[in-house]
Amino acid sequence: MKIISGGITAPEGYTASGISCGIKKGGGRDLALLVSDTTASAAGVFTLNSVKGNSLKLTMEHIHKGSARAVVINSGNANACNGPNGYDNAHSLCQKTASLLHCPKDEILFNSTGVIGFPLSMDKLLPGLDSAYNNLSRDGAGDCAQAIMTTDTFQKEIAVELELHKKKVRIGGMAKGSGMIHPDMATMISVLTTDVSMDHVLLKESLKKSCDRSFNRISVDGDTSVCDMVVILANGRADSQKIERNTSSYARFMQALEYVCEELAKSIARDGEGATKLLEICCTGAKTASDAHKVINSVARSPLVKTMFFGMDANPGRIITAVGYSTADIEPSRIDIFIGDLQFYKAGNALPFSEKDAKDVLMQKEIKVVIDLNMGQYQDRIWTCDLSYDYVKINGSYRT
Amino acid sequence: MKIISGGITAPEGYTASGISCGIKKGGGRDLALLVSDTTASAAGVFTLNSVKGNSLKLTMEHIHKGSARAVVINSGNANACNGPNGYDNAHSLCQKTASLLHCPKDEILFNSTGVIGFPLSMDKLLPGLDSAYNNLSRDGAGDCAQAIMTTDTFQKEIAVELELHKKKVRIGGMAKGSGMIHPDMATMISVLTTDVSMDHVLLKESLKKSCDRSFNRISVDGDTSVCDMVVILANGRADSQKIERNTSSYARFMQALEYVCEELAKSIARDGEGATKLLEICCTGAKTASDAHKVINSVARSPLVKTMFFGMDANPGRIITAVGYSTADIEPSRIDIFIGDLQFYKAGNALPFSEKDAKDVLMQKEIKVVIDLNMGQYQDRIWTCDLSYDYVKINGSYRT
Repeated sequence: MKIISGGITAPEGYTASGISCGIKKGGGRDLALLVSDTTASAAGVFTLNSVKGNSLKLTMEHIHKGSARAVVINSGNANACNGPNGYDNAHSLCQKTASLLHCPKDEILFNSTGVIGFPLSMDKLLPGLDSAYNNLSRDGAGDCAQAIMTTDTFQKEIAVELELHKKKVRIGGMAKGSGMIHPDMATMISVLTTDVSMDHVLLKESLKKSCDRSFNRISVDGDTSVCDMVVILANGRADSQKIERNTSSYARFMQALEYVCEELAKSIARDGEGATKLLEICCTGAKTASDAHKVINSVARSPLVKTMFFGMDANPGRIITAVGYSTADIEPSRIDIFIGDLQFYKAGNALPFSEKDAKDVLMQKEIKVVIDLNMGQYQDRIWTCDLSYDYVKINGSYRT
Repeated sequence: MKIISGGITAPEGYTASGISCGIKKGGGRDLALLVSDTTASAAGVFTLNSVKGNSLKLTMEHIHKGSARAVVINSGNANACNGPNGYDNAHSLCQKTASLLHCPKDEILFNSTGVIGFPLSMDKLLPGLDSAYNNLSRDGAGDCAQAIMTTDTFQKEIAVELELHKKKVRIGGMAKGSGMIHPDMATMISVLTTDVSMDHVLLKESLKKSCDRSFNRISVDGDTSVCDMVVILANGRADSQKIERNTSSYARFMQALEYVCEELAKSIARDGEGATKLLEICCTGAKTASDAHKVINSVARSPLVKTMFFGMDANPGRIITAVGYSTADIEPSRIDIFIGDLQFYKAGNALPFSEKDAKDVLMQKEIKVVIDLNMGQYQDRIWTCDLSYDYVKINGSYRT
């Protein structure tokens, strides 16, 4: 497997565009379109929030078909909690896209991200779709990745190539964050493309499994949103043999897909609102998988832990405190805690450390925290970021 | 019932002091002592964090006796996760206090609050206890309340007087916050005193019930700590008739105790680290008590909701989002949301509002948010605060 350029249009048979139709203040790109030349197998994973945006609701209906031609996403407005017109508008936009592509309406996957509670500007989006369609190109992945951004500070793209049965196949992906990120989806959207051939049932399985180790293992602020989704299209255009369950080619495809998802997930955490550091929180030695999961979530979500990393103030008592209220089955007197190379806790007690050594560790831009419960064999890990002044600034004036 | 001055020494038979023994940088008061002239009934409620400070562990043993003479609290060091000496040191400090008061060691309740993982400075605390003892006074409540403060910006005290069986009785209280505040205790300590006569079993019941509606209904940042406790002493020095279960005097005592706890709890939320606003989050119309509880916790804990209030940016979509991921049994299309006098959501959809009206509501220092689920008869409420730059500043450099 090698990393290549090209993002979501790196695989064969995809074109994309990202244009500005006037929803975002300041004129940034706000309408993204991805099209597969031929109908692709399609699968998705969606937010568990009980409140769901109207665009997402429609996509959750369409995905049942198991195939799709295109993905449309607007940024700047979540199309959520805005009355019955919201759902009708989502329908109209799918209908318009389907007309342009001469395909059934339910082969269009649509989503919206941005502020909640305001009507979609259909007078901007409908002509915007014409423009997006006219701009479709094999080089359009970058524009497309930009058009789904909200508070993201950089576009998030990746593509990889691998050989299956002597044919080159590719996987591409793009994603957006960057606040409201938490396991079980967050204010995040990711679109993945591949030119392998795969049944949509198996595609769904592979997507679900990859998400559980990537997008469902990032946390920015513990909030989850109403529009979050990861979708994947597989159009078979690499002309490689169809990938079947329990084969070595499936295993190699899974490995590549997990890599793509993990890199995109990490880039979301790294670009968390106001973030200055990427933190990897690992729990080892847990009695059960659930205990490990509780510990990493509790620590990754703690504002006290996150501000400590922002301030580079070596106060690891906050980590053991968050472990303590995680409700995991723990024995305080067995807990070891490491930050980077330095051990700060041994058997539940703080070890002495030099301020210089601590500073060296805390100054890093990427920091790994390991909490060893010494209770059993299970482990888990999550990526998160620090909590800075800029998080407060961004979110104190998000709408205005 | 009337509000009076005097804090924890307002009831008969109590003296207190708060001195500086040199633990806190800058020379602030850091050792608090409260003494009842005679042995009092005693009860406590403690943190549910699995990791517990050594001082707290010892107090949780002592409280089983059901009676106490004194409460000792040091600030600046939590005496937690600092090796086996931590527990021995707690013993020594109780022993020393008991010698000064000529009482059994297990009638001393001791706690420590501050940074985790460092040894207690016994060379400062042991002579400090002599000084605290020598400074005991009927007017010492204010000094005592100051000596338990950590990042608090003001001392938190209250006292009330009521008549039971034609005798005047009093309840006094002090508390400290102010980060790591969350239901089921937080980095908070409260000490309550009364001169009524009451069996310790009933005293425990009344304390538990009061805490559930006050200290267990505040949230600053969702973290809970390793040293949190609320204790109450009842020394009977008002010479009023003993308070028994299911009597009108018990009902009136409970009402007064709940008032004292609620006012102290609100003052902790109001003084949350970096807080500029006191927020009361109410959920009504819930199907079950548990649903109402899930909703208020989810909303009060959301950094996106809290930064919105700090920035006074009318973005109530964040409130319905937090309701959506609360895991409560809700129907999005039934939810009404009010902030102050203004309704922002009706039947799950955002209502139009004028920026001026919204600003008027969001500029208030105390804001009530009501979320009506329209699903049933249960309700609950919690106090919290906004999330500001100063929270990040305080917690990015807590230790240094």
